[in-house]
Amino acid sequence: MAKKTARRKVSKTEEKNGKLSAKDRKTLKSIGGLAEGVNKAAFRGRDPHLEIPSRSLSNVRYNKTKRFIEMGRGKNRRELFNLSQAKSYMQTVLVGNGCRQLINAGKTTSIRGLYYLLKHTIEGTREETFDEQKDCDPIIEDVEVMLSALREELHLYAKNAGAMVGPITLVDSGDEIDCSRMGSGGYSIPSIAEPEVVQFKRHTAKFVLHVEKDTVWRRFNEDKFWQEHDCILTHGGGQPPRGVRRLLHRLHHELKLPVYCLLDNDPWGYYIYSVIKQGSINLAYESKRMAIPAARYMGMRSKDYERCGLSSSVTIGLNDNDVKRAKQIAGYPWFANKKAWQKEIDLMLQNGFKLEVEALINKGISYVTQEYVPARLDDRDFLD
Amino acid sequence: MAKKTARRKVSKTEEKNGKLSAKDRKTLKSIGGLAEGVNKAAFRGRDPHLEIPSRSLSNVRYNKTKRFIEMGRGKNRRELFNLSQAKSYMQTVLVGNGCRQLINAGKTTSIRGLYYLLKHTIEGTREETFDEQKDCDPIIEDVEVMLSALREELHLYAKNAGAMVGPITLVDSGDEIDCSRMGSGGYSIPSIAEPEVVQFKRHTAKFVLHVEKDTVWRRFNEDKFWQEHDCILTHGGGQPPRGVRRLLHRLHHELKLPVYCLLDNDPWGYYIYSVIKQGSINLAYESKRMAIPAARYMGMRSKDYERCGLSSSVTIGLNDNDVKRAKQIAGYPWFANKKAWQKEIDLMLQNGFKLEVEALINKGISYVTQEYVPARLDDRDFLD
Repeated sequence: MAKKTARRKVSKTEEKNGKLSAKDRKTLKSIGGLAEGVNKAAFRGRDPHLEIPSRSLSNVRYNKTKRFIEMGRGKNRRELFNLSQAKSYMQTVLVGNGCRQLINAGKTTSIRGLYYLLKHTIEGTREETFDEQKDCDPIIEDVEVMLSALREELHLYAKNAGAMVGPITLVDSGDEIDCSRMGSGGYSIPSIAEPEVVQFKRHTAKFVLHVEKDTVWRRFNEDKFWQEHDCILTHGGGQPPRGVRRLLHRLHHELKLPVYCLLDNDPWGYYIYSVIKQGSINLAYESKRMAIPAARYMGMRSKDYERCGLSSSVTIGLNDNDVKRAKQIAGYPWFANKKAWQKEIDLMLQNGFKLEVEALINKGISYVTQEYVPARLDDRDFLD
Repeated sequence: MAKKTARRKVSKTEEKNGKLSAKDRKTLKSIGGLAEGVNKAAFRGRDPHLEIPSRSLSNVRYNKTKRFIEMGRGKNRRELFNLSQAKSYMQTVLVGNGCRQLINAGKTTSIRGLYYLLKHTIEGTREETFDEQKDCDPIIEDVEVMLSALREELHLYAKNAGAMVGPITLVDSGDEIDCSRMGSGGYSIPSIAEPEVVQFKRHTAKFVLHVEKDTVWRRFNEDKFWQEHDCILTHGGGQPPRGVRRLLHRLHHELKLPVYCLLDNDPWGYYIYSVIKQGSINLAYESKRMAIPAARYMGMRSKDYERCGLSSSVTIGLNDNDVKRAKQIAGYPWFANKKAWQKEIDLMLQNGFKLEVEALINKGISYVTQEYVPARLDDRDFLD
């Protein structure tokens, strides 16, 4: 009894704190619509069910006009009165309700937080709503795609990853942040980079340089590359998380800045580029808000071994998996017709090795910032 | 030939850019001393060797007066004219020289960067200086401990991890940063948090609340807990990296702020506390600059299941490894004589489950910030 009272008390406080933005109201309406659909079906004596767009590979296609990956129209039905679907039906409604709670309270949480928020023993049974977090995560993706709402709009966030520095001032959660005066660590890119959270105020940047790793980013920041070249410098800690992709997308579309990517010359680097540019298969339903078809690949290139006179000491031999992945990527519909990319991947396979951006330090501590990238910007030898 | 010219040119530029701090000069002197010792031995016709303090468990002890782990006096000899040691001797000198280059240039790099910087084929052989990064990393630790210089003083850094927010203004690399106006992501704690990089300017904080994970940190930041309670809020992304530990140490010692730790009720949480408080076995030589013997453990506690009326749904059963680790930790000399800790660990084993801080969301989205921690601050029921 004591437990229930405490829970009710907190919920009340939470609702008082809530401030609803236009987008929050829209998301709440979508969630409401979901519940209403179920209600209606029940009142008409029909079996309640949900229609969930399919996130399988077969329901994804490359849109040549828009130049990104998008989701097809395939849907799966999830029914309440179906023994094999009843639990996931219940879980879907539960996740929708959890997000509604968060939005109403004006608060956000992690996907682990949502799992803990919703986890309980179903009354009168010994059954848990979710046994583990991995039961909850795919349901969250179902709800995102069903409501066509970004995870961030459902008030859920991932770990912060990625940093930004450069001649741009923005407002994040009401705080004005001058990204040219952020010390050695830079502005930590939030996992929710929607316009409700982050607004661009003013800037004098001419382009965005996105590098793969924080170690490379740090070299560029320490050398104040962004000052000399009037650019915004970002990294995504490897495969950039949603917040970083969303921010790059907004820098490109709202501020009309070209985005150049400095990634490793290996299948993983190619794949990161592919995701930034065309979107990912898994998050195809978010491509329109994430993909940057006009992004450009600035290096490392397979020809850099010769072009930069690199030592064989800094090459890393391709393993079987690298070769397999390289061939897969070469076969992606969005790479298949690009001669320059086919040549690039062929040459890497021919070389038999990969090259990391960090390897350029072998030519001098600041070779990458003082020679390599300036030369690429001059010769404009980008891959599309 | 072209290669060599380029390398020389870059090196020149690098030296011009260098600005040497007092600490840099001291580190350079240590490295110089190392080289000189080798020289002297050679001129006297003796075999050049290095004396490297041993980093094995047997050379570590708990200092009851200082209340942290420190290194003993055990040393290992590394000789040039010894077939099994010649290569690691060469590598040690190489790492020392690489760090000298970095310091002279006034630049920093990652441990991967240093590996690439130093990697080359030894003239006249087919032997590489280092085959893989894992050959280089332990040599870096050898050099640190031999010179009694923090990795950061050698101009090497780890990944940035951890964030800070609160009523404190600091200067990082010349930029003034008001940590109360840093948006949703907070101030990204740099991996080099030495006074040369980060200076505290002013603050109105009464204590530091250190939480384990960024997801928990975010709840506290979103609820502006630090505003209501006049505290500095930090997280270390799990086991806090050196930069975070160093910053906590400085906040505690320079600003005289108590440090309270909110960690999971599991062996991993206990261990994190142990490292913050007494130092780690692996980095025992850095305890005096990292350990905070007066840090306090504020929760989660084994008794919270009862005390907070938590649902059994949010408990996680202990596995065999958890039980083993818990017993190991209970046996640490610095926990062995503490009745409260023995009771704490016993109760967890008796419970048969662990509790994550995130689980408190099950009691309400902001239960942790509005009820749990305020109650702990009131009742002052900390573990030492």
